Amino acid sequence: MPKTKRFRAKVEAVLIATDPRTFVTQRIPQTEIDLAGIPGDRHYGLTRYAGAREPMYPKGAEIRNRRQLSIVSIEECHLIAQSLGLEVVLPEWLGANLLLSGLPNLTLLPCGTRLMFPSGACLICEGENTPCRYPAKVLQKLHPQHPNVLKNFVRVAQKRRGIICSVERSGEICQSDTIQILQEYNTTPLLSSVV
Amino acid sequence: MPKTKRFRAKVEAVLIATDPRTFVTQRIPQTEIDLAGIPGDRHYGLTRYAGAREPMYPKGAEIRNRRQLSIVSIEECHLIAQSLGLEVVLPEWLGANLLLSGLPNLTLLPCGTRLMFPSGACLICEGENTPCRYPAKVLQKLHPQHPNVLKNFVRVAQKRRGIICSVERSGEICQSDTIQILQEYNTTPLLSSVV
Repeated sequence: MPKTKRFRAKVEAVLIATDPRTFVTQRIPQTEIDLAGIPGDRHYGLTRYAGAREPMYPKGAEIRNRRQLSIVSIEECHLIAQSLGLEVVLPEWLGANLLLSGLPNLTLLPCGTRLMFPSGACLICEGENTPCRYPAKVLQKLHPQHPNVLKNFVRVAQKRRGIICSVERSGEICQSDTIQILQEYNTTPLLSSVV
Repeated sequence: MPKTKRFRAKVEAVLIATDPRTFVTQRIPQTEIDLAGIPGDRHYGLTRYAGAREPMYPKGAEIRNRRQLSIVSIEECHLIAQSLGLEVVLPEWLGANLLLSGLPNLTLLPCGTRLMFPSGACLICEGENTPCRYPAKVLQKLHPQHPNVLKNFVRVAQKRRGIICSVERSGEICQSDTIQILQEYNTTPLLSSVV
Protein backbone atom coordinates (compact mmCIF):
# COMPACT_ATOMS: atom_id res chain seq x y z
CA MET A 1 0.00 0.00 0.00
CA PRO A 2 1.22 3.54 -0.59
CA LYS A 3 2.08 5.36 2.63
CA THR A 4 0.60 8.69 3.62
CA LYS A 5 2.35 11.78 4.92
CA ARG A 6 0.14 14.21 6.79
CA PHE A 7 0.58 17.96 7.10
CA ARG A 8 -1.58 20.79 8.34
CA ALA A 9 -2.03 24.27 7.02
CA LYS A 10 -4.25 27.23 7.78
CA VAL A 11 -6.50 28.99 5.28
CA GLU A 12 -5.50 32.66 5.61
CA ALA A 13 -7.81 33.84 2.84
CA VAL A 14 -10.44 32.63 0.37
CA LEU A 15 -10.56 34.62 -2.87
CA ILE A 16 -12.65 34.77 -6.03
CA ALA A 17 -12.36 36.37 -9.46
CA THR A 18 -15.81 37.59 -10.50
CA ASP A 19 -14.86 40.57 -12.68
CA PRO A 20 -14.56 39.23 -16.25
CA ARG A 21 -12.02 41.94 -17.08
CA THR A 22 -9.31 40.62 -14.77
CA PHE A 23 -7.91 37.47 -13.19
CA VAL A 24 -7.14 39.44 -10.00
CA THR A 25 -9.10 37.94 -7.10
CA GLN A 26 -10.92 39.47 -4.13
CA ARG A 27 -11.27 38.16 -0.59
CA ILE A 28 -14.50 36.57 0.60
CA PRO A 29 -15.10 35.04 4.03
CA GLN A 30 -16.14 31.62 2.71
CA THR A 31 -17.62 29.82 -0.25
CA GLU A 32 -19.21 26.52 -1.20
CA ILE A 33 -17.20 24.59 -3.77
CA ASP A 34 -18.74 21.95 -6.01
CA LEU A 35 -17.21 19.49 -8.49
CA ALA A 36 -16.65 22.30 -11.01
CA GLY A 37 -14.84 24.63 -8.61
CA ILE A 38 -15.93 27.91 -7.02
CA PRO A 39 -19.30 29.00 -8.48
CA GLY A 40 -18.93 32.46 -10.00
CA ASP A 41 -15.13 32.28 -10.30
CA ARG A 42 -13.56 32.73 -13.72
CA HIS A 43 -12.01 29.26 -13.59
CA TYR A 44 -15.27 27.53 -12.67
CA GLY A 45 -16.22 24.63 -14.93
CA LEU A 46 -16.13 20.87 -15.38
CA THR A 47 -14.32 21.44 -18.66
CA ARG A 48 -12.24 24.18 -20.21
CA TYR A 49 -10.40 24.83 -23.46
CA ALA A 50 -6.79 23.78 -23.97
CA GLY A 51 -4.34 26.66 -24.24
CA ALA A 52 -0.64 27.43 -24.11
CA ARG A 53 -0.19 25.31 -20.98
CA GLU A 54 -1.29 22.18 -22.87
CA PRO A 55 0.88 22.07 -25.98
CA MET A 56 -0.05 18.39 -26.42
CA TYR A 57 -3.59 19.39 -27.45
CA PRO A 58 -4.95 21.43 -30.33
CA LYS A 59 -5.65 24.95 -29.08
CA GLY A 60 -9.29 25.18 -28.02
CA ALA A 61 -9.82 21.43 -27.53
CA GLU A 62 -12.31 20.73 -24.74
CA ILE A 63 -10.57 19.04 -21.82
CA ARG A 64 -11.46 18.29 -18.22
CA ASN A 65 -10.81 21.31 -16.04
CA ARG A 66 -7.99 20.40 -13.67
CA ARG A 67 -7.25 24.09 -13.00
CA GLN A 68 -10.36 24.91 -10.99
CA LEU A 69 -8.64 26.57 -8.02
CA SER A 70 -5.18 27.98 -7.51
CA ILE A 71 -3.47 28.07 -4.14
CA VAL A 72 -0.48 30.03 -2.88
CA SER A 73 1.25 30.19 0.50
CA ILE A 74 2.24 33.17 2.60
CA GLU A 75 5.72 31.73 2.91
CA GLU A 76 6.30 31.36 -0.82
CA CYS A 77 4.73 34.74 -1.62
CA HIS A 78 7.17 36.22 0.84
CA LEU A 79 10.09 34.55 -0.97
CA ILE A 80 8.87 35.93 -4.31
CA ALA A 81 8.53 39.40 -2.78
CA GLN A 82 12.04 39.22 -1.34
CA SER A 83 13.51 38.15 -4.68
CA LEU A 84 11.78 41.04 -6.43
CA GLY A 85 12.70 43.58 -3.74
CA LEU A 86 9.03 44.18 -2.91
CA GLU A 87 7.51 44.51 0.53
CA VAL A 88 4.75 42.04 -0.17
CA VAL A 89 3.20 39.94 -2.94
CA LEU A 90 -0.51 39.56 -2.32
CA PRO A 91 -2.47 36.47 -3.40
CA GLU A 92 -4.94 38.79 -5.18
CA TRP A 93 -2.24 39.84 -7.65
CA LEU A 94 -1.52 36.19 -8.52
CA GLY A 95 -5.20 35.40 -9.02
CA ALA A 96 -5.07 32.87 -6.19
CA ASN A 97 -8.24 31.37 -4.71
CA LEU A 98 -6.67 30.29 -1.45
CA LEU A 99 -3.85 31.66 0.65
CA LEU A 100 -2.34 29.14 3.06
CA SER A 101 0.16 29.37 5.87
CA GLY A 102 2.10 26.65 7.64
CA LEU A 103 3.18 24.58 4.63
CA PRO A 104 6.32 26.30 3.39
CA ASN A 105 6.95 24.24 0.24
CA LEU A 106 3.39 24.17 -1.01
CA THR A 107 4.48 24.26 -4.66
CA LEU A 108 6.34 20.98 -4.31
CA LEU A 109 3.25 18.98 -3.33
CA PRO A 110 2.92 16.19 -5.88
CA CYS A 111 -0.13 15.54 -8.05
CA GLY A 112 -2.76 13.48 -6.28
CA THR A 113 -2.20 15.03 -2.84
CA ARG A 114 -5.49 15.65 -0.99
CA LEU A 115 -6.30 18.92 0.80
CA MET A 116 -9.17 18.23 3.20
CA PHE A 117 -11.36 20.89 4.80
CA PRO A 118 -13.28 20.66 8.09
CA SER A 119 -16.57 20.66 6.12
CA GLY A 120 -15.53 17.47 4.32
CA ALA A 121 -14.73 19.31 1.09
CA CYS A 122 -11.57 18.07 -0.58
CA LEU A 123 -9.23 19.34 -3.27
CA ILE A 124 -6.81 17.26 -5.35
CA CYS A 125 -3.44 18.77 -6.18
CA GLU A 126 -3.03 18.78 -9.96
CA GLY A 127 0.53 20.06 -9.85
CA GLU A 128 2.65 23.18 -9.87
CA ASN A 129 1.13 26.38 -11.20
CA THR A 130 3.93 27.32 -13.53
CA PRO A 131 4.42 31.09 -13.54
CA CYS A 132 3.37 33.14 -16.56
CA ARG A 133 3.61 36.83 -17.43
CA TYR A 134 0.07 37.96 -16.58
CA PRO A 135 0.70 38.37 -12.85
CA ALA A 136 4.09 39.87 -13.69
CA LYS A 137 2.31 42.66 -15.57
CA VAL A 138 0.00 43.34 -12.62
CA LEU A 139 2.94 43.43 -10.22
CA GLN A 140 4.95 45.71 -12.52
CA LYS A 141 2.08 48.15 -12.92
CA LEU A 142 1.67 48.38 -9.15
CA HIS A 143 5.40 48.91 -8.59
CA PRO A 144 6.67 51.32 -11.24
CA GLN A 145 9.61 52.21 -9.00
CA HIS A 146 10.92 48.62 -9.40
CA PRO A 147 11.59 48.40 -13.14
CA ASN A 148 12.72 44.74 -13.21
CA VAL A 149 9.63 43.09 -11.78
CA LEU A 150 8.18 42.20 -15.17
CA LYS A 151 11.47 40.80 -16.36
CA ASN A 152 12.21 38.74 -13.22
CA PHE A 153 8.85 37.46 -12.00
CA VAL A 154 8.63 34.23 -14.01
CA ARG A 155 12.14 33.21 -13.00
CA VAL A 156 11.90 33.96 -9.28
CA ALA A 157 8.39 32.48 -9.02
CA GLN A 158 9.50 29.01 -10.20
CA LYS A 159 8.54 26.42 -7.57
CA ARG A 160 7.03 29.21 -5.43
CA ARG A 161 3.89 30.18 -7.29
CA GLY A 162 1.74 27.51 -5.69
CA ILE A 163 -0.40 24.74 -7.09
CA ILE A 164 -3.57 24.18 -9.07
CA CYS A 165 -6.33 21.94 -7.80
CA SER A 166 -9.54 20.26 -8.81
CA VAL A 167 -12.40 19.40 -6.48
CA GLU A 168 -12.85 15.79 -5.38
CA ARG A 169 -15.66 16.46 -2.90
CA SER A 170 -18.02 19.41 -2.54
CA GLY A 171 -18.41 21.50 0.60
CA GLU A 172 -17.72 24.76 2.33
CA ILE A 173 -14.27 26.31 2.51
CA CYS A 174 -13.70 29.16 4.96
CA GLN A 175 -11.10 31.63 6.02
CA SER A 176 -9.41 30.31 9.22
CA ASP A 177 -10.07 26.66 8.34
CA THR A 178 -7.32 24.30 9.39
CA ILE A 179 -6.85 21.85 6.55
CA GLN A 180 -5.34 18.37 6.52
CA ILE A 181 -2.97 17.54 3.70
CA LEU A 182 -2.65 13.86 2.79
CA GLN A 183 0.26 13.05 0.53
CA GLU A 184 0.43 9.45 -0.64
CA TYR A 185 3.81 8.27 -1.77
CA ASN A 186 5.67 5.17 -2.80
CA THR A 187 8.93 4.32 -1.17
CA THR A 188 10.17 2.97 -4.51
CA PRO A 189 12.11 5.63 -6.43
CA LEU A 190 9.95 6.47 -9.42
CA LEU A 191 12.04 7.91 -12.19
CA SER A 192 14.90 5.46 -12.24
CA SER A 193 12.48 2.54 -12.13
CA VAL A 194 10.36 3.69 -15.00
CA VAL A 195 13.21 4.42 -17.36
CA MET B 1 9.16 24.54 -15.91
CA PRO B 2 8.67 20.87 -15.09
CA LYS B 3 10.44 18.58 -17.53
CA THR B 4 8.71 15.82 -19.45
CA LYS B 5 9.76 12.22 -19.94
CA ARG B 6 8.23 10.46 -22.91
CA PHE B 7 7.51 6.78 -23.30
CA ARG B 8 5.54 4.70 -25.76
CA ALA B 9 3.35 1.69 -25.20
CA LYS B 10 1.05 -0.46 -27.30
CA VAL B 11 -2.60 -1.12 -26.55
CA GLU B 12 -2.84 -4.92 -26.66
CA ALA B 13 -6.49 -5.01 -25.64
CA VAL B 14 -9.47 -2.78 -24.82
CA LEU B 15 -11.91 -4.31 -22.34
CA ILE B 16 -15.28 -3.47 -20.79
CA ALA B 17 -17.37 -4.75 -17.88
CA THR B 18 -21.03 -4.68 -18.95
CA ASP B 19 -22.40 -7.58 -16.90
CA PRO B 20 -23.62 -6.08 -13.62
CA ARG B 21 -22.94 -9.38 -11.83
CA THR B 22 -19.16 -9.25 -12.21
CA PHE B 23 -16.21 -6.88 -12.50
CA VAL B 24 -14.57 -9.28 -14.98
CA THR B 25 -14.07 -7.52 -18.32
CA GLN B 26 -14.43 -8.63 -21.93
CA ARG B 27 -12.42 -7.62 -24.98
CA ILE B 28 -13.82 -5.20 -27.53
CA PRO B 29 -11.99 -3.88 -30.60
CA GLN B 30 -12.39 -0.21 -29.69
CA THR B 31 -14.54 2.26 -27.81
CA GLU B 32 -15.20 5.96 -27.53
CA ILE B 33 -14.35 7.38 -24.12
CA ASP B 34 -15.88 10.57 -22.77
CA LEU B 35 -15.17 12.61 -19.65
CA ALA B 36 -16.98 10.04 -17.49
CA GLY B 37 -15.05 7.03 -18.79
CA ILE B 38 -16.14 4.14 -21.03
CA PRO B 39 -19.90 4.35 -21.67
CA GLY B 40 -21.54 1.12 -20.52
CA ASP B 41 -18.67 0.08 -18.25
CA ARG B 42 -19.39 -0.53 -14.56
CA HIS B 43 -16.95 2.23 -13.54
CA TYR B 44 -18.46 4.83 -15.87
CA GLY B 45 -19.45 8.08 -14.17
CA LEU B 46 -18.39 11.63 -13.39
CA THR B 47 -18.87 10.82 -9.71
CA ARG B 48 -18.96 7.70 -7.57
CA TYR B 49 -19.44 6.83 -3.93
CA ALA B 50 -16.52 6.69 -1.50
CA GLY B 51 -15.70 3.21 -0.25
CA ALA B 52 -12.98 1.25 1.51
CA ARG B 53 -10.28 2.80 -0.69
CA GLU B 54 -11.13 6.30 0.62
CA PRO B 55 -11.03 6.00 4.41
CA MET B 56 -10.78 9.80 4.65
CA TYR B 57 -14.44 10.11 3.55
CA PRO B 58 -17.68 8.90 5.07
CA LYS B 59 -18.73 5.69 3.31
CA GLY B 60 -21.08 6.55 0.46
CA ALA B 61 -20.03 10.21 0.14
CA GLU B 62 -20.28 11.41 -3.45
CA ILE B 63 -16.83 12.16 -4.86
CA ARG B 64 -15.40 12.81 -8.28
CA ASN B 65 -14.70 9.55 -10.08
CA ARG B 66 -10.95 9.26 -10.49
CA ARG B 67 -11.22 5.47 -11.03
CA GLN B 68 -12.87 5.54 -14.45
CA LEU B 69 -10.50 3.14 -16.20
CA SER B 70 -7.97 0.63 -14.94
CA ILE B 71 -4.89 -0.35 -16.91
CA VAL B 72 -2.52 -3.28 -16.58
CA SER B 73 0.56 -4.30 -18.54
CA ILE B 74 1.47 -7.65 -20.08
CA GLU B 75 4.84 -7.46 -18.38
CA GLU B 76 3.46 -6.92 -14.87
CA CYS B 77 0.70 -9.52 -15.36
CA HIS B 78 3.45 -11.95 -16.30
CA LEU B 79 5.33 -11.16 -13.07
CA ILE B 80 2.17 -11.72 -11.02
CA ALA B 81 1.56 -15.03 -12.82
CA GLN B 82 5.13 -16.15 -12.18
CA SER B 83 4.90 -15.29 -8.49
CA LEU B 84 1.67 -17.29 -8.20
CA GLY B 85 2.97 -20.24 -10.24
CA LEU B 86 0.34 -19.69 -12.94
CA GLU B 87 0.86 -19.81 -16.66
CA VAL B 88 -0.89 -16.52 -17.29
CA VAL B 89 -2.88 -13.78 -15.55
CA LEU B 90 -5.35 -12.28 -18.00
CA PRO B 91 -6.45 -8.63 -17.82
CA GLU B 92 -10.08 -9.85 -17.84
CA TRP B 93 -9.61 -11.46 -14.44
CA LEU B 94 -8.31 -8.19 -12.96
CA GLY B 95 -11.20 -6.21 -14.40
CA ALA B 96 -8.79 -4.13 -16.48
CA ASN B 97 -10.02 -1.83 -19.26
CA LEU B 98 -6.70 -1.64 -21.09
CA LEU B 99 -3.83 -4.05 -21.49
CA LEU B 100 -0.56 -2.40 -22.50
CA SER B 101 2.81 -3.70 -23.57
CA GLY B 102 6.15 -1.95 -23.78
CA LEU B 103 6.07 -0.07 -20.46
CA PRO B 104 7.35 -2.59 -17.93
CA ASN B 105 6.86 -0.58 -14.74
CA LEU B 106 3.43 0.80 -15.56
CA THR B 107 2.33 0.70 -11.91
CA LEU B 108 5.05 3.16 -10.91
CA LEU B 109 3.79 5.95 -13.17
CA PRO B 110 3.09 8.94 -10.93
CA CYS B 111 -0.23 10.72 -10.64
CA GLY B 112 -0.70 13.34 -13.31
CA THR B 113 1.04 11.39 -16.08
CA ARG B 114 -0.77 11.70 -19.43
CA LEU B 115 -1.53 8.72 -21.69
CA MET B 116 -2.30 10.06 -25.16
CA PHE B 117 -4.04 8.13 -27.93
CA PRO B 118 -3.74 8.65 -31.70
CA SER B 119 -7.36 9.92 -31.77
CA GLY B 120 -6.46 12.75 -29.38
CA ALA B 121 -8.13 11.07 -26.41
CA CYS B 122 -6.11 11.38 -23.22
CA LEU B 123 -6.11 9.67 -19.82
CA ILE B 124 -4.63 11.04 -16.60
CA CYS B 125 -2.90 8.60 -14.28
CA GLU B 126 -4.58 8.82 -10.86
CA GLY B 127 -2.14 6.44 -9.21
CA GLU B 128 -1.51 2.81 -8.36
CA ASN B 129 -4.45 0.43 -8.36
CA THR B 130 -3.77 -1.14 -5.00
CA PRO B 131 -4.62 -4.85 -5.11
CA CYS B 132 -7.70 -6.15 -3.29
CA ARG B 133 -9.18 -9.62 -2.80
CA TYR B 134 -11.86 -9.63 -5.50
CA PRO B 135 -9.54 -10.56 -8.36
CA ALA B 136 -7.81 -12.98 -6.00
CA LYS B 137 -11.10 -14.85 -5.63
CA VAL B 138 -11.59 -15.01 -9.40
CA LEU B 139 -8.05 -16.29 -9.89
CA GLN B 140 -8.43 -18.87 -7.12
CA LYS B 141 -11.69 -20.22 -8.52
CA LEU B 142 -10.10 -20.64 -11.95
CA HIS B 143 -7.04 -22.41 -10.51
CA PRO B 144 -8.24 -24.84 -7.84
CA GLN B 145 -5.02 -26.84 -8.28
CA HIS B 146 -3.04 -23.84 -6.89
CA PRO B 147 -4.41 -23.51 -3.34
CA ASN B 148 -2.37 -20.42 -2.35
CA VAL B 149 -3.51 -17.98 -5.01
CA LEU B 150 -6.16 -16.38 -2.82
CA LYS B 151 -3.73 -16.01 0.05
CA ASN B 152 -0.83 -14.62 -2.00
CA PHE B 153 -2.40 -12.42 -4.69
CA VAL B 154 -2.58 -9.13 -2.79
CA ARG B 155 1.04 -9.40 -1.68
CA VAL B 156 2.55 -10.39 -5.04
CA ALA B 157 0.43 -7.88 -6.97
CA GLN B 158 1.79 -4.86 -5.05
CA LYS B 159 3.30 -2.36 -7.52
CA ARG B 160 2.32 -4.69 -10.40
CA ARG B 161 -1.45 -4.44 -10.57
CA GLY B 162 -1.45 -1.36 -12.79
CA ILE B 163 -2.95 2.08 -12.48
CA ILE B 164 -6.28 3.83 -12.41
CA CYS B 165 -7.06 6.71 -14.72
CA SER B 166 -9.57 9.42 -15.41
CA VAL B 167 -10.30 10.95 -18.80
CA GLU B 168 -8.91 14.39 -19.62
CA ARG B 169 -10.03 14.43 -23.26
CA SER B 170 -12.65 12.38 -25.08
CA GLY B 171 -11.99 10.25 -28.14
CA GLU B 172 -11.60 6.79 -29.55
CA ILE B 173 -9.28 4.20 -28.03
CA CYS B 174 -8.48 1.10 -30.08
CA GLN B 175 -6.68 -2.18 -29.86
CA SER B 176 -3.25 -1.80 -31.54
CA ASP B 177 -3.05 1.93 -30.78
CA THR B 178 0.43 3.17 -30.01
CA ILE B 179 0.11 5.59 -27.11
CA GLN B 180 2.41 8.36 -25.96
CA ILE B 181 3.06 8.65 -22.24
CA LEU B 182 4.04 12.11 -20.97
CA GLN B 183 5.39 12.15 -17.45
CA GLU B 184 6.09 15.58 -16.03
CA TYR B 185 8.53 15.71 -13.19
CA ASN B 186 10.44 18.12 -11.06
CA THR B 187 14.12 17.73 -10.63
CA THR B 188 13.77 18.89 -7.02
CA PRO B 189 13.41 15.91 -4.67
CA LEU B 190 9.87 16.11 -3.33
CA LEU B 191 9.59 14.35 -0.04
CA SER B 192 12.60 15.73 1.74
CA SER B 193 11.74 19.25 0.68
CA VAL B 194 8.16 19.16 1.89
CA VAL B 195 8.95 17.75 5.31
